[in-house]
Amino acid sequence: MSLIWAKGTSRPDEAIQRFSAADDVQLDRVLFRFDIQASGAHVLGLEKAGVLSAAESSSLREALKSLDAAWTNGEFELDERYEDGHSAIESYLIEKLGEVGKKVHTGRSRNDQVLVASRLYLRTSLDELKALCVTIAKTTLEVAHAEMMTPMPGYTHLQRAVPSSVGLWMAAFAEAFTDNAELAELTRKWVNKNPLGTAAGYGVNAPLERDLVSGELGFDALQINPIYAQNSRGKFEIQVIDTFAQAMLDVRRLMWDLSLYTTAEFDFVRLPDAYTTGSSIMPNKRNPDIVELLRAAYGVVEGARVELTQTLSLPSGYHRDLQNTKGPMIRAIERSKEALRLIPPLIGELQFQREKMAAAISPDMYATDIATELALGGMPFRDAYKEAARQIPEIQDRDPAESLKSRTSPGATANPLLDRIEARLSGLAD
Amino acid sequence: MSLIWAKGTSRPDEAIQRFSAADDVQLDRVLFRFDIQASGAHVLGLEKAGVLSAAESSSLREALKSLDAAWTNGEFELDERYEDGHSAIESYLIEKLGEVGKKVHTGRSRNDQVLVASRLYLRTSLDELKALCVTIAKTTLEVAHAEMMTPMPGYTHLQRAVPSSVGLWMAAFAEAFTDNAELAELTRKWVNKNPLGTAAGYGVNAPLERDLVSGELGFDALQINPIYAQNSRGKFEIQVIDTFAQAMLDVRRLMWDLSLYTTAEFDFVRLPDAYTTGSSIMPNKRNPDIVELLRAAYGVVEGARVELTQTLSLPSGYHRDLQNTKGPMIRAIERSKEALRLIPPLIGELQFQREKMAAAISPDMYATDIATELALGGMPFRDAYKEAARQIPEIQDRDPAESLKSRTSPGATANPLLDRIEARLSGLAD
Amino acid sequence: MSLIWAKGTSRPDEAIQRFSAADDVQLDRVLFRFDIQASGAHVLGLEKAGVLSAAESSSLREALKSLDAAWTNGEFELDERYEDGHSAIESYLIEKLGEVGKKVHTGRSRNDQVLVASRLYLRTSLDELKALCVTIAKTTLEVAHAEMMTPMPGYTHLQRAVPSSVGLWMAAFAEAFTDNAELAELTRKWVNKNPLGTAAGYGVNAPLERDLVSGELGFDALQINPIYAQNSRGKFEIQVIDTFAQAMLDVRRLMWDLSLYTTAEFDFVRLPDAYTTGSSIMPNKRNPDIVELLRAAYGVVEGARVELTQTLSLPSGYHRDLQNTKGPMIRAIERSKEALRLIPPLIGELQFQREKMAAAISPDMYATDIATELALGGMPFRDAYKEAARQIPEIQDRDPAESLKSRTSPGATANPLLDRIEARLSGLAD
Amino acid sequence: MSLIWAKGTSRPDEAIQRFSAADDVQLDRVLFRFDIQASGAHVLGLEKAGVLSAAESSSLREALKSLDAAWTNGEFELDERYEDGHSAIESYLIEKLGEVGKKVHTGRSRNDQVLVASRLYLRTSLDELKALCVTIAKTTLEVAHAEMMTPMPGYTHLQRAVPSSVGLWMAAFAEAFTDNAELAELTRKWVNKNPLGTAAGYGVNAPLERDLVSGELGFDALQINPIYAQNSRGKFEIQVIDTFAQAMLDVRRLMWDLSLYTTAEFDFVRLPDAYTTGSSIMPNKRNPDIVELLRAAYGVVEGARVELTQTLSLPSGYHRDLQNTKGPMIRAIERSKEALRLIPPLIGELQFQREKMAAAISPDMYATDIATELALGGMPFRDAYKEAARQIPEIQDRDPAESLKSRTSPGATANPLLDRIEARLSGLAD
Repeated sequence: MSLIWAKGTSRPDEAIQRFSAADDVQLDRVLFRFDIQASGAHVLGLEKAGVLSAAESSSLREALKSLDAAWTNGEFELDERYEDGHSAIESYLIEKLGEVGKKVHTGRSRNDQVLVASRLYLRTSLDELKALCVTIAKTTLEVAHAEMMTPMPGYTHLQRAVPSSVGLWMAAFAEAFTDNAELAELTRKWVNKNPLGTAAGYGVNAPLERDLVSGELGFDALQINPIYAQNSRGKFEIQVIDTFAQAMLDVRRLMWDLSLYTTAEFDFVRLPDAYTTGSSIMPNKRNPDIVELLRAAYGVVEGARVELTQTLSLPSGYHRDLQNTKGPMIRAIERSKEALRLIPPLIGELQFQREKMAAAISPDMYATDIATELALGGMPFRDAYKEAARQIPEIQDRDPAESLKSRTSPGATANPLLDRIEARLSGLAD
Repeated sequence: MSLIWAKGTSRPDEAIQRFSAADDVQLDRVLFRFDIQASGAHVLGLEKAGVLSAAESSSLREALKSLDAAWTNGEFELDERYEDGHSAIESYLIEKLGEVGKKVHTGRSRNDQVLVASRLYLRTSLDELKALCVTIAKTTLEVAHAEMMTPMPGYTHLQRAVPSSVGLWMAAFAEAFTDNAELAELTRKWVNKNPLGTAAGYGVNAPLERDLVSGELGFDALQINPIYAQNSRGKFEIQVIDTFAQAMLDVRRLMWDLSLYTTAEFDFVRLPDAYTTGSSIMPNKRNPDIVELLRAAYGVVEGARVELTQTLSLPSGYHRDLQNTKGPMIRAIERSKEALRLIPPLIGELQFQREKMAAAISPDMYATDIATELALGGMPFRDAYKEAARQIPEIQDRDPAESLKSRTSPGATANPLLDRIEARLSGLAD
Repeated sequence: MSLIWAKGTSRPDEAIQRFSAADDVQLDRVLFRFDIQASGAHVLGLEKAGVLSAAESSSLREALKSLDAAWTNGEFELDERYEDGHSAIESYLIEKLGEVGKKVHTGRSRNDQVLVASRLYLRTSLDELKALCVTIAKTTLEVAHAEMMTPMPGYTHLQRAVPSSVGLWMAAFAEAFTDNAELAELTRKWVNKNPLGTAAGYGVNAPLERDLVSGELGFDALQINPIYAQNSRGKFEIQVIDTFAQAMLDVRRLMWDLSLYTTAEFDFVRLPDAYTTGSSIMPNKRNPDIVELLRAAYGVVEGARVELTQTLSLPSGYHRDLQNTKGPMIRAIERSKEALRLIPPLIGELQFQREKMAAAISPDMYATDIATELALGGMPFRDAYKEAARQIPEIQDRDPAESLKSRTSPGATANPLLDRIEARLSGLAD
Repeated sequence: MSLIWAKGTSRPDEAIQRFSAADDVQLDRVLFRFDIQASGAHVLGLEKAGVLSAAESSSLREALKSLDAAWTNGEFELDERYEDGHSAIESYLIEKLGEVGKKVHTGRSRNDQVLVASRLYLRTSLDELKALCVTIAKTTLEVAHAEMMTPMPGYTHLQRAVPSSVGLWMAAFAEAFTDNAELAELTRKWVNKNPLGTAAGYGVNAPLERDLVSGELGFDALQINPIYAQNSRGKFEIQVIDTFAQAMLDVRRLMWDLSLYTTAEFDFVRLPDAYTTGSSIMPNKRNPDIVELLRAAYGVVEGARVELTQTLSLPSGYHRDLQNTKGPMIRAIERSKEALRLIPPLIGELQFQREKMAAAISPDMYATDIATELALGGMPFRDAYKEAARQIPEIQDRDPAESLKSRTSPGATANPLLDRIEARLSGLAD
């Protein structure tokens, strides 16, 4: 354990230490490269501000690069020898460079150090989220194109309502994940502000080169006010988690559809083998476990969000409570990314049971078509509605394909406007 | 009770009816004008699609205008005589216009009707949110300008840390609410899509003029896919509530500051009289009740969000569960708007106890300045830190104003960059 | 507006007043009788403590009785003329009795006044909850008895697993609601402690007769410590809401079952007409709206809980934030009670589609029976499992009734131990 | 990876496997001994039911004991070689005993296997919770006895209200944790029911000796119905987490008090050194980090609860979503236990700043005493209240000790009834 700033007045007992450290070092593994990256930019800023010489700056940045390499190739281990990632970096630099290593923390606090590392992590995660949502949108769009005229029942209240199609169902998720990708982009823009250089929350008596450092790290702007930088800890995490939550909400809904459609009773869809598993007691079972775990993943995100919002009932400034933002942030984001990665191959390999779907379209489901036909012919809709209700027992079985072709309202099967969704996807810059 | 589509096969008993109706009619009062507005646009679309004659369209739109006027001036009451706002509109039109009134629901379902009314409400609420956040940002910015060099202690862990200023504290909220206003703008852009014309979730067999209707209602785009339109019920509400939650999170933090700073022990700030109340048993008390109620308001928003997310564990398509999105949506938004409106006058009338604040800056709080000074002079920061710690008992009382003037890092008191915040506020279009 | 303790130094503006009052008076309508009841006991306590004369006590208690009667029969209205229910009571007494009326608040604060009224409401609600759960348990038990040998498929992962029965399914809820009833009883015992007599949180300089007052109000014990009494505001509400949440969690699950089983694809159960409604656009629909609204009701409870827990991040003692506990408490409890009341008639009138259920039991579902038979015959279970898997394609259709009769493990269809559930229900004292 | 029941039809790709396994094996380390224990009882039950011979039973139980010993002393590692703890046990038995090992899973499913292991874990955790709460109650009670007449201000709305005492404050938590201990006991009673023997949710065609197994494992009763056993997964976890949440809610409140009272402005309490840490940039700081982390721990519990309740929106029967109950259950319980263990030494070493507290009692704080004195003398309280308000500017400084001695209402400083709290603590059986 490296306690660089310990003043040696107390000997914390083990239980306290364990409670306080918790899984901080493991969590910092996720943030470590971002912390190293931001430390390099901080060093450059100190050089430009005249606090470090060019030689000092150069040797510190070289050492940081070598640490990054050692970490990436597994030579450097971030483990319980260190209190956290910050300590590990500073210890490494002091060990490598001696006195110069002790200079890296000038004008910086762990408070803005963790903020900037988290911010870079959040930004990168949003980029990954956007890319994942685009891929899901494209995958579902492809199916939508191919299956727009493949009949399946449309449900409301889980009751058979009107004829619909596999393509219309898939296009719903293409549009949803296009929205989710756009939201990731909007949120990225909103959070991409640099907190580094605000120190413990009140700035420092040194003319830090914050704009230069921000540019170096690819931020769009400064997070200007040092107190606000502290107050944004958790606040920005929430916004990012909410953005992931939107995507995961649609995953939950899609998994509900699959859970239902893979029952023996519906039997509209079969899953690829890799997405099912057996039972320990029942030899006859192939269970849609992955679909169910994907459905449950939303709970992880939502639980993490509540953990954050419960923690953030605080006055201004840094409080150690904020350490509690790290765990839920990482848990929600990593679980979501893992989940989203499984969607495209799952969608791509769904086996649609076309005959079962067609057979599930019963004659009464044409009543709405009939009511609208009557209304288009001039009958007041309320009367047409009653007339169609009256006709239900006599409705002859129609061809569902005809119904799908007649559904001409924009967005419906005969006019699904998939090109508009494609255009939006193209507009989402890499 | 008007049950237009009842088929008379069952006689629902009273408890069921009460459970099912709940407070739906009261909630619909908030949405009523939006429902009327969207109905007008729907009529226009039906006319352009050739479903209604120009004369029918004109009389329906006139009648809707007269209903809007009657509602606005209190002549029309939306109460338990009606199942909900939708029924009230249709009943009104049928009563006024007879047969023509029965045509308004052509090509429309209650499903997309409530979606579009809610969407318009959400959009309007975001506009209000943006305006409120801009006002709060401007108010706090004004105080920040005036009080940037008014010393007050800066805290971390609620412990005295380094000298700070009233202006720096206020500027933190100026930047926060500028972010919140921008977020309202981004979210507005994201949600401003038209669900009307998607019917019960599968479109209709009629060439509805959705683009025209969208333009008429000021939407930026169609919500294209009818199934997605249904699936977005609640999803979009969540995003808007999350946007309000960001502003309310900062309100909670600011109220925590005020709650603390108005204690006798801190006594940094006194509240305007209107924001305090007496005690029923203790004659000596003036309590910051409004500050506390403002702090608690965040819970309303967060509770509403959970109510929504719990409800949305559903397969695709409409389910009656979704009626449960209306209550929390309105509760969270209306309470937030009420709360936010109280902030500017509160901030504007705060009485800062300048002497108390200055007196709370103790000599040890200059240790960080000293450590940084030593580091700027070339001493490695870790050594400078130890040296400053050693000097603490000997630190002479300094002038806090000098410390504030020396804090030159961008964003800090000597270089607070308020012009950048102002520039962003100016950039927020009305 | 009656502001009894106003000291006239400030003129709160209207928006503040509205924000602060919110819907407090409406909420107090739910608590009003409890407040009156507790006020009567408080008066009696003051008499026994020698603070009020027997005559004063008697006239105050008479007046409270007349207020209760006037409220009950609708002669007294609790509306916006009063700040809240407490003010209404005191105003009424002063108006009726003059000087004596001004004595009722001796030794009492609004803080313990609202605590005791809420506590009585919570206790009464728990009694209602227990009774409702017992009724639901009895109703489901009755069906369980009648239908224990009515075959229906048993599902895991929503996949057909092994033969089960309607009775086994119903008995699951009989046991669940027996647990829920017991929990209501345990929670009642835990919360049934008297906070009245703790004043604003620090007691008073008067020898209040708290034990006598507690007995008068039917409490099991004092809530002793005055600070704790304040700190329990919200804490006890949470425990009661959690208790309701347990029942509502089972309601959500049962409604999920019904939602699924009433699809055309399953068609295992048909709902009584009163529990379904029509569609505004689709003439062919009968939708299980009430089932869906019952499913969604859980979200109300959970949202209320989060609203409470978010609010309770506070130091010791009363804070006005705590007013925010009233709304969610009442919303969660009242909605739950309404929902629970609808369950027994719903269960009682379910129409089981016996043939559909039997037909859904496919031969492969006997594989587990076979594996167990082989294992009972001495084959290691892992080998038996593989052997049964091998036999699946050859399994002859068996009689599901035979399978149900062979399921002899305690709790299963051949030995369902319903008498034990009955015994527990009998043990639940009224 | 050991996939005992794999049927070899599919080759799950790595990402799916990783997503599906997640941290299941690590979580199972917490449950492993309970799983072994329950497996032993299951074997005994199979013997009594005649499914296993005495020799088979004996060798299986011996092997389980040796596994338990090997696990306890670190010789056996539960790691990624195994899919989960269940697989590890079965693999171990097969490796040790060959054919006999394959018999252990007879009449059992992973579904009831994980249920019973979790149930035993929950029960044990409740026992630990009760013990921890009792210790906290006793510690605070000790301080309450010693410091009942040590004056400190009593606050409402964080405003100075009336004189109070250190002892009264501590007694509040003594009573709270006595309630929490009792709740742990009540919840233990409620959850202590045996789900083992319900297999996959429908029982088995074998006369399992469930009562015997229950007794062996110390359960109070059977969880009778097999479907209910599955439906209780998560439901019982929630109840236990709620019980922990009650204790952690009081921890949060107590930590808020300490956070406030350790500010320089209040300075009522100083913390033991081991509970504070330094700053990385500010040499002058000693921060109450542990207090803040303890305050934040409530968020972990609440987040876990939401993760559970979000997951549990499901129809009857087992779904793989339920695997998601394990993580939050363990996270909430383990973090809470760690937190609660730190409270007694913290309380025991608090240094009360008696002079600072006494000095913070200002003369106006006696106004309520005066009002009550006047009321006891016969003046109507509303008039006494006004009279006391009038006198405030003239109130002479009184001795706070006198005020504390006059506070005779039961529970207040002059009559704190600590013996009643002690009696309840004694009544809590070990």
